[in-house]
Amino acid sequence: MRDVAIIGVGSTVFGKLPERLVRDMGSEAVWAAINDANVSPKEIEFAYCSTTFGGAVCGERILTEVGISGIEVVNVENACAGGATAFRGVWNAIASGLYDIGLVVGVESMTTSPIARKLIPPEAGDLAGDMGNNMPAHFALSMRRHMEIYGTTLEQFAKVSVKNHHNGCLNPYSQYKKELSIEEILNSRMICDPITLLQCCPNTDGAAAAILCPISIARKYTPKPIIVAASILKMGDYASRWEDMASSDLSSRCAREAYEMAGCGPEDIDVCECHDAFAYSELSHYEELGFCGYGEGGQLIDVGATEITGRIPVNPSGGLLSRGHPVSATGVEQVAEIVWHLRDEAGKRQVAGARVGLAHTMGGEVAGLEAGACAIHILKR
Amino acid sequence: MRDVAIIGVGSTVFGKLPERLVRDMGSEAVWAAINDANVSPKEIEFAYCSTTFGGAVCGERILTEVGISGIEVVNVENACAGGATAFRGVWNAIASGLYDIGLVVGVESMTTSPIARKLIPPEAGDLAGDMGNNMPAHFALSMRRHMEIYGTTLEQFAKVSVKNHHNGCLNPYSQYKKELSIEEILNSRMICDPITLLQCCPNTDGAAAAILCPISIARKYTPKPIIVAASILKMGDYASRWEDMASSDLSSRCAREAYEMAGCGPEDIDVCECHDAFAYSELSHYEELGFCGYGEGGQLIDVGATEITGRIPVNPSGGLLSRGHPVSATGVEQVAEIVWHLRDEAGKRQVAGARVGLAHTMGGEVAGLEAGACAIHILKR
Repeated sequence: MRDVAIIGVGSTVFGKLPERLVRDMGSEAVWAAINDANVSPKEIEFAYCSTTFGGAVCGERILTEVGISGIEVVNVENACAGGATAFRGVWNAIASGLYDIGLVVGVESMTTSPIARKLIPPEAGDLAGDMGNNMPAHFALSMRRHMEIYGTTLEQFAKVSVKNHHNGCLNPYSQYKKELSIEEILNSRMICDPITLLQCCPNTDGAAAAILCPISIARKYTPKPIIVAASILKMGDYASRWEDMASSDLSSRCAREAYEMAGCGPEDIDVCECHDAFAYSELSHYEELGFCGYGEGGQLIDVGATEITGRIPVNPSGGLLSRGHPVSATGVEQVAEIVWHLRDEAGKRQVAGARVGLAHTMGGEVAGLEAGACAIHILKR
Repeated sequence: MRDVAIIGVGSTVFGKLPERLVRDMGSEAVWAAINDANVSPKEIEFAYCSTTFGGAVCGERILTEVGISGIEVVNVENACAGGATAFRGVWNAIASGLYDIGLVVGVESMTTSPIARKLIPPEAGDLAGDMGNNMPAHFALSMRRHMEIYGTTLEQFAKVSVKNHHNGCLNPYSQYKKELSIEEILNSRMICDPITLLQCCPNTDGAAAAILCPISIARKYTPKPIIVAASILKMGDYASRWEDMASSDLSSRCAREAYEMAGCGPEDIDVCECHDAFAYSELSHYEELGFCGYGEGGQLIDVGATEITGRIPVNPSGGLLSRGHPVSATGVEQVAEIVWHLRDEAGKRQVAGARVGLAHTMGGEVAGLEAGACAIHILKR
C-alpha cells in the first residue's frame, strides 16, 4: 500500500439553500478542490461521491456539470458517515495502486429531500424506530445516563453548543454565525428531554470535495500535501451493544485502531473535527477518542480545553451544530477543515501550529447496535 | 494486485414480493452465499451492499439480520450498474490486499419503493428528462435508429424477448416462467413506439450475494473457485455522446478494456449475461460486446446463436426481461448466474462446457451522456 496525500480541498458555504441543485453545489465544491489542487480536470482518473438524498448516479451528474466524463465513478451511502466512507474509497484505490489521482465529493440537499423539516424516519421493519426510538430519543437516553453515572451537568453539555456556535462565527463556510449563551441554549424549545433545540444539529444543504494522489507525486501539485496517516471504517458491534449508553464503544474501538495505524495517540492530536450531532455527542466523543478519561468530558469543556486556543481544540469549524450537517457531505467537509488547519489556512479559527488532525463521523441507526457506521481519519502535515 | 476468486454465490427467487423486507431478502441471499462458500460468517472481514431504493445503512441492516457485526460496510449506488459496482469494490479491496474475505450483496424492493408502478422519474434539474426523454423514450429512439440504418425488424427485436422468456422458464430464480410468442410480444400494450410492454424489463424485488477471496486460499473453501479475470467500470463519455443512437460506445469501450484485462476476446466468451433492460438493448449489446459486427444483431438472433445451445449464449437466466430487474441486485445476480454456469451447476439452463463468462450492466441517465455507468466483469473457471 502506498502513502496517499490530499492535494486540494473545497467546500460550498453551508446553509438552507433549497434553490440550489445537488449538481450545482457538488460542482462548486469540485471546482474549488480542483483549483486548490492546481490539477487539471483531465488528470482526475476516478471519483467517489457520497449522498443520501441526492438521487441516482449523483456523482456522474456532478462530474457532467463540471465537464468530466468517461471515468470510474462510485456513489456511496453510509448515513452520516457517508462522506468519510467515500473519502476512504478514494484513499484505498490510490493506496492500492489502482489509480493515481482521485476525487471525492459529498453533497446533500436536505431542504429539498423527502425528510425536509422532519426527523429521519425509521427504515421498514425497524421495530425500535417505529416505537419512537429515533435519534433524539436515543441520544437523550445516553445523555441522561452520562449525567447519572458521571454527574455531568446540563450546563456542561450546553457549553459544547456555546463553543461550537462561537467557532461558527469565525468560519465563512458555517451555516450559523451567531453567538449563543448557555441560557439561550437551555431555554430553547425542548426536543427530547433533556435535549433542547439548540443542542441539535440542523438540516443543511451543501457540498465539499477533496483530491488525493500518492505522496510520491503530491509536490508536483502543492507545496503543502497532507498525508492520510490512518483510515478506519467499521459498523456497530454486537459485542459492545450498549453495555453502557453513556458512551459508544464503536467510536473508541475505531479510535484505537486509527491511532495504531497512524502510529500516534490522542495526546498527539492537535485539532479534531468530531460528530457533534447533539451537544451530548461531542462531550462523549472527547472520552471515546481518548482526549480525557471516561466521565471527564464535562470537566474538559469546563476548563476550555477544546476551544480553539485550548489543549485539544475540537470542532473549530463550528461542527455539525453550527457549521451545519448536510448528511453525506459532512465527512468530506471535516477533511477539508482539518486540511486547512494543517496548512495554516484556517483564518480566524486557525488552531496555531496544528500538525496532526483527526476527523470522526458516526452514522445510521441499526436496531440492536449502537450505530450503523463509524469512520475515523487521521491526517498529518 | 492479487488474483481474486468467487467462492460462493446465492440469490432469492425474484418476483413481486411487497411483503418481504429488504433486510429479509438480503439476509436470505447472504446466507445462501455463505453456505455455498462453506465459509463461517465470522471469517467475513468486510462487505459491500448495493441498493437504490433500500434506505440508509442497508448493508449494516442486512448483516445485523444475518448476525454479522463490527466489520467495514460500504453501501453503493450506481443505478442499474450498482450491483456490479459493489462487486468491483469487493474485488478491489481483496486484490489490493486490504482484506482477504469479502461479501457483496445487492438488494431491491421495487414494489415498496417510491417508484412502485411508475417510471423512474428524472432527477431535479434534468431538463431532457422533464421534457419526456425517459428510459423507454430514449431506447425507442435508439431502436428506431437501428431499424433505419441496419434494416433490423420488429420481429428480430421480439425474438430477444421470446428467447429470454423461454430461458426464464428453465430458471427457478426467474420472476416470469411463461413462454411468449413473437405475436404476443408485438401485440402487447404499446409503451413507447416501437417498444411494447413485453419488450420492457419489469419492476422486481429480490437480492443476490457473492463471497470473494484471494485465489491463493480459495481451494480451502471450494473445489471450483471462479476467477475474476477482468473488472471495468466507467461513466459515459462526452467524446462518444450519441454519435449514433443505434449503439452505445460506452459499452464497447468498456468491453475492449475488459477483454484486454482478461487477455481474451469476444470469441472466447462461452456465456454472457447482458443488460437487456429492453429487447432492443440486448440486440445492440451483441454488437457492442463484439459477438457480431455492427448491424448484425438481428441476424445473430435469427440464427439462434444467442440461445442456450447457440454459439454465444446470452442471458440464459432469462435476463432482465424474464428473470427480472431488481435494480441494484441485478449486477450481483448476473455474477451468480455466470458462476453457476462455469461450475456446471445451472440445471436445465446450463450452457454446456462453459469456461469463460461475461457480465454486463449499464445504469442511469445523465443528460448529455449516453449513460451514467457501465460495468463489465469477465469470469473464468
